[in-house]
Amino acid sequence: MTVAAFSPRIARWLHDHDPSTPCLVLDLDVVTRRYHEQRAALPYATPYYAVKASPEPAVIALLVKLGACFDVASRAEIDLCLANGADPGSLSYGNTIKKSADIAYAHQRGVSTFVFDNVRELDKIAEAAPGAAVYCRLLSESAGARWRLGDNFGCSLEYAVELMTRAAQLGLRPYGLSFHVGSQQLEPARWEPNIAAAAEAFEKLRANDVELEMLNLGGGFPARYAEPVLPIIQFGKAIEQALDRWFPGARRPRIVTEPGRSISAEAGVLRTQVVSVREPFEGADRWVYLDAGRFGGLAETEGEAIQYRVETERGGPTQPVIMAGPTCDSIDVIYRDAAYALPQELEIGDRVDFLSAGAYTASYSSIGFNGFPPLPTHCIGGGS
Amino acid sequence: MTVAAFSPRIARWLHDHDPSTPCLVLDLDVVTRRYHEQRAALPYATPYYAVKASPEPAVIALLVKLGACFDVASRAEIDLCLANGADPGSLSYGNTIKKSADIAYAHQRGVSTFVFDNVRELDKIAEAAPGAAVYCRLLSESAGARWRLGDNFGCSLEYAVELMTRAAQLGLRPYGLSFHVGSQQLEPARWEPNIAAAAEAFEKLRANDVELEMLNLGGGFPARYAEPVLPIIQFGKAIEQALDRWFPGARRPRIVTEPGRSISAEAGVLRTQVVSVREPFEGADRWVYLDAGRFGGLAETEGEAIQYRVETERGGPTQPVIMAGPTCDSIDVIYRDAAYALPQELEIGDRVDFLSAGAYTASYSSIGFNGFPPLPTHCIGGGS
Repeated sequence: MTVAAFSPRIARWLHDHDPSTPCLVLDLDVVTRRYHEQRAALPYATPYYAVKASPEPAVIALLVKLGACFDVASRAEIDLCLANGADPGSLSYGNTIKKSADIAYAHQRGVSTFVFDNVRELDKIAEAAPGAAVYCRLLSESAGARWRLGDNFGCSLEYAVELMTRAAQLGLRPYGLSFHVGSQQLEPARWEPNIAAAAEAFEKLRANDVELEMLNLGGGFPARYAEPVLPIIQFGKAIEQALDRWFPGARRPRIVTEPGRSISAEAGVLRTQVVSVREPFEGADRWVYLDAGRFGGLAETEGEAIQYRVETERGGPTQPVIMAGPTCDSIDVIYRDAAYALPQELEIGDRVDFLSAGAYTASYSSIGFNGFPPLPTHCIGGGS
Repeated sequence: MTVAAFSPRIARWLHDHDPSTPCLVLDLDVVTRRYHEQRAALPYATPYYAVKASPEPAVIALLVKLGACFDVASRAEIDLCLANGADPGSLSYGNTIKKSADIAYAHQRGVSTFVFDNVRELDKIAEAAPGAAVYCRLLSESAGARWRLGDNFGCSLEYAVELMTRAAQLGLRPYGLSFHVGSQQLEPARWEPNIAAAAEAFEKLRANDVELEMLNLGGGFPARYAEPVLPIIQFGKAIEQALDRWFPGARRPRIVTEPGRSISAEAGVLRTQVVSVREPFEGADRWVYLDAGRFGGLAETEGEAIQYRVETERGGPTQPVIMAGPTCDSIDVIYRDAAYALPQELEIGDRVDFLSAGAYTASYSSIGFNGFPPLPTHCIGGGS
């Protein structure tokens, strides 16, 4: 069994401990490795780890030790980072949707960098966190991404210029711009059009006597799931060339990224067990029911968007299967159209491992849908 | 504000307590009312409340007091019912997907009725719960239902006959058959084809000297959301006519139902607050961001399947909106295509209430995605 392709340590641990399933096993050493790799591939950027990807306290504590900054989405994520030793100055409140009370709370705890994408949010920040550094999120296109970002967040270039000018007038620090190319973005070229748009906004603001200091390139750097992805270094190079083109020489602002899954996904293996099997009938595929499904950690299989590498203990010939979770809910189907095949000899009780499951899994699981508890996590590895 | 159409008590409670949002408020008196209504509309059936719809302990304790039986999906749901005073004999383990250890656990706690839909599950029950009463789930069509059940569960009529014959040979009690027409089923006529199929299976089994005792009509009885639904009495009558046709006179077996949302949905109001508003630009609708979304209790808005009645405190003209939750996830959109309109004057801080939200909400919420905690629940009402 070649379980845990990115961590022989997880394979050993699973073998030695044979934990109750379902569970997530995280190898902190892989987090360290991926963090260093990210730094090396984009040496010109300061990574703000997207806490939402894996808010496991040991992961946060490790990244604090490694000197990371943090992109936080809520009050609880702020508390988590501070409790694990992060400096409040290393936090960026990167959710465009924030209650005033939460902005004030962050401000009071020492967080001084906030995103916004519309005038109401900007005004809330000016009131609840006077003098804060603010950056405006630009609407961007997320074609090429496996988990597209749609139009929930971001504003037009023209509106960003207007709002940033207003930010300065409100006594805020007009800090910079951000965009996001979509999560699990497979194409390095997708950053450039957004960098070009940002450069245009920088220039227009300069004409208004507003000098921005920072450009946030968002996340989107891919993790290795079932399909091949380019090495992170190729993303780093493509982005650097784009920066050289649009922000030449001394014009280049401070560059920030928000990697999430590219740091923590490959550190995790989600181990499940076969609970039931329904043999093919009337032309249907074999159904394999596991003890974790869409409500037990595999939320990103919604629409089959994220396709994990799946491994079992069995060899031999395989056959097409539909994989489903353990609840009575018809939408608790993991993969139906994605053409997964599993060993014909796979039987009830067999382990089925989802690789690169360290991001967007445990924190997504339901509090108790159908009475199934949230996914437990085991952290292993020295971590430094 | 006509909040809480089905419970003036909730409206008063919300007014008096102005609770932190988001939260779910459940009026136990509505549960009582809906339970009695269900009994009156289908006097020939024994309702097994589908615990998954709302596993709130006060709801379970109330239903125990009212004499309900329970459809449970997991070990935790068994524990919940027993802890709230249910007799183990009143429990039916209605999830076709069960670990052997969980079957054994149920058996040891006194649960004696189990569903299955394939030979492996049947054999597991025979081994882990010898002598238990078993019923086989037939595959059924869920057209007409707002939350369709697909083909995850159930087997063909022929296979059910084979398996039930085998059940008798294995020393199990060949108890009956079940089917499910899909959750939030709007058409009373959808039960009859399944009742007819079940009658055929009963006859074939009789020819094999296997006399079944029970027919489980599943759930599917609708709750009142945004669209009108027929009164439960019309479902009761249509089903009774179908039973008279296919199981005439003394042939009628014990009839069981598994109502979930029709009991608890209308008992609940999910109160949220407007966190942010993005005005229309470039032809897009106004975005209204609430403090609960798909990961904070509104999971059944996936695909906009369940369309709640939504109320606010504002009057005046309305405008089309896209409603979204508070997380940074692009799929955290509540309604986009469903053509909801909210008051033009709606502002940040305003309350937005989702009516009939007592089922499939709190238990679905994520343990902490983006750092947002699960939905808290407040129970009010005497309950009897």
